[in-house]
Amino acid sequence: MISKIYEILSRSPIFRDISPEKIEEMVTRFRYNIRTYKKGNTITLRGEPCEELMIVIKGTVKGEMIDFKGKAIEIEMISAPRPLAPAFLFGKHNRFPVDVVASEEVVLLSIPKSSLINIFQSNATVLNNFLNIISDRTQFLSDKLWFISFKSIKEKIAHYILSLLKKGKNTVMLPKNQQELSEFFGVTRPSLSRVFAELEKENILFYDRRKIIIKDRDKLNEILKEDL
Amino acid sequence: MISKIYEILSRSPIFRDISPEKIEEMVTRFRYNIRTYKKGNTITLRGEPCEELMIVIKGTVKGEMIDFKGKAIEIEMISAPRPLAPAFLFGKHNRFPVDVVASEEVVLLSIPKSSLINIFQSNATVLNNFLNIISDRTQFLSDKLWFISFKSIKEKIAHYILSLLKKGKNTVMLPKNQQELSEFFGVTRPSLSRVFAELEKENILFYDRRKIIIKDRDKLNEILKEDL
Repeated sequence: MISKIYEILSRSPIFRDISPEKIEEMVTRFRYNIRTYKKGNTITLRGEPCEELMIVIKGTVKGEMIDFKGKAIEIEMISAPRPLAPAFLFGKHNRFPVDVVASEEVVLLSIPKSSLINIFQSNATVLNNFLNIISDRTQFLSDKLWFISFKSIKEKIAHYILSLLKKGKNTVMLPKNQQELSEFFGVTRPSLSRVFAELEKENILFYDRRKIIIKDRDKLNEILKEDL
Repeated sequence: MISKIYEILSRSPIFRDISPEKIEEMVTRFRYNIRTYKKGNTITLRGEPCEELMIVIKGTVKGEMIDFKGKAIEIEMISAPRPLAPAFLFGKHNRFPVDVVASEEVVLLSIPKSSLINIFQSNATVLNNFLNIISDRTQFLSDKLWFISFKSIKEKIAHYILSLLKKGKNTVMLPKNQQELSEFFGVTRPSLSRVFAELEKENILFYDRRKIIIKDRDKLNEILKEDL
């Protein structure tokens, strides 16, 4: 097994573009651990400090959360040769976001933070790989957050306007200005403005300050139907 | 000004715990730039590649987005000695997420990615600081995303159950199982389960498979009112 480890690690995103020989040289120079887990073993619990970079060498682990009724809910499967939660190793709240359980027999290589810093300083490629992995994660979350909050604000605004719209009318005078509206919805002004602009772009409404002219009431209703 | 730069940088989160003398030694060893912008100058545009770490040395910049009507909407103000978008420097999509404009006379120190990697390799403290900064960002976004999607799913479920609830009744038999429901709402099963568990914990309802017993209809209604 040991001889194959560096071959496997060379396929891991952390060690991308580095030869198995070079990886062996780097990893064995500093402190590291290899641990084996049987199927069903708990590897770590949500909230435990994350002090080592763990890389799956063999098998698959699952990230789980326990629901209110004590039932385990699977969040994510991570197979060899992927690392576990690399974006949770540094930072002020470096704790595992989920429970991690072995789905089958699992071998993990663990590199303590201090050894990892040594490896980063000895090899710019590993450092770049790691920075790319966690930056990708941040950028993915940032996009997703933008998309979700945008969708949710759109639904709120549609609901609000429809609730103010009198039967047979197609004009609404908003009782609040944009600043008050954003506070009312608990969102930032830029997000609110962006949603109004999008509704106008989609030809659903036209707005001028507080005055809203509905151009397509069916489409406005549809936004709420997408909700369910 | 030049003599004061390293004093200012020593207060930046990037150079935390490093003396001005040491910072000067590190930064001047590699390629870097100092640029001055007048009030209102555009420093970079949303979507431009982010290839240098920019740190505000003097003044304040604002992150802006342009709305549909061509109006600039302010997203964030960044003052000396903070870095600009450090989590967007590495990764596959290393582009600025917003336009950056000088709010007053601004001096920026820019360190190209390659120089930054050199600095990281020569000083473990700077490396740790940078990893902490971008990991904090990821963890913040991850928590926020969890919270927002949770809140939005809760509203959807409340809306859905209330729409099925017949007048005078307090029991609903859901026409879909949890798997079908999660597909219907476009959310993951773990998130759905967590929301149902929370509703039970708050004594709003009790559930057993598809059967829902409403224990507090007013509170269920309130979830939708929070929406506006």
